[in-house]
Amino acid sequence: MIKKVYLAGPEVFLSNAIEIGKKKKDLCKKYGFEGIFPLDNEINFDLLRPYETGLKISQINEELLKKCDLVIANITPFRGPSADVGTIFEIGFAKGLGLIIFAYTNTKILFTERTVGFVGIRSNTDFTNLRDHNDMKIEQFGMTDNLMIDGGIVNDKGMIFSGDVPEHELYTSLVVFEECLKYMQLHLI
Amino acid sequence: MIKKVYLAGPEVFLSNAIEIGKKKKDLCKKYGFEGIFPLDNEINFDLLRPYETGLKISQINEELLKKCDLVIANITPFRGPSADVGTIFEIGFAKGLGLIIFAYTNTKILFTERTVGFVGIRSNTDFTNLRDHNDMKIEQFGMTDNLMIDGGIVNDKGMIFSGDVPEHELYTSLVVFEECLKYMQLHLI
Repeated sequence: MIKKVYLAGPEVFLSNAIEIGKKKKDLCKKYGFEGIFPLDNEINFDLLRPYETGLKISQINEELLKKCDLVIANITPFRGPSADVGTIFEIGFAKGLGLIIFAYTNTKILFTERTVGFVGIRSNTDFTNLRDHNDMKIEQFGMTDNLMIDGGIVNDKGMIFSGDVPEHELYTSLVVFEECLKYMQLHLI
Repeated sequence: MIKKVYLAGPEVFLSNAIEIGKKKKDLCKKYGFEGIFPLDNEINFDLLRPYETGLKISQINEELLKKCDLVIANITPFRGPSADVGTIFEIGFAKGLGLIIFAYTNTKILFTERTVGFVGIRSNTDFTNLRDHNDMKIEQFGMTDNLMIDGGIVNDKGMIFSGDVPEHELYTSLVVFEECLKYMQLHLI
């Protein structure tokens, strides 16, 4: 039975989302999986108001996830120091359902450094207990993102892959995604 | 049987996290619930390295969530246009487990407006199809956050509460949190 992989990530927001989705699905096939790309750009609910459309897409994506065995989530930082929250919700939901979760990010810069670069640190901060300007803690666990993300993936059978890509390919490069699939082919099929 | 409520939110990063946690738990008790505050600041795993500490906290928080009936998540925007990703993971995880999820946010500004204010829009953007400078879609669903968050909560029995608070109380005010508890007391007990 071919394993179904839900392909979570912010590429649903790209203008060529469908094309990227097709490339991801083709790569899944190459490594022996069936890729399931979430709905977003590709639907047109003309009869629904925006709010109802949003609710419907959420429902459809949750149903798609329930049919999958695995997730590969693109956790490349998106509009801030962390991954896209839609993707993070899907990782959490999949974990709650018992799916195995893999993730990849197109940057090797770790979460602590990204957060410091993004929000700055309080003056006179203690470098063993970094704090931002609101005196709120900046996590220092040597992780890819917030500990619930890394832990949710790594405490189970999942793994996080990271690599650096050219900046203009931050949301389109599939090099690290393919590394993840290669690993999965050798360890999950 | 008193219902257990997991109290997700970025207040775990505050220097007075334990004090805020106690206030939240006291309010839960006042309205007939038992509040469970996630571990973060309050632990000291001296024998573990940072990465292992992060993994351990993640595991403990997931175990706490599994013992709860409900979640109240603080989805006030955190270090970007969206909620804290640790909180979002917990919402998704709880949804996957079948818990009912409530959320509150200490701002009434909706997600589209926050995102536009945060990342800006592409020149010559089409206002019926907003795009950022990377030509990536900005969701326009009249929602509080990304559609997976609002949908994940509202498509079920949950609700999202929002209100404006003084700026210096953005991460500490419990006024909207208490509104949420009042609703829950009338509808869930």
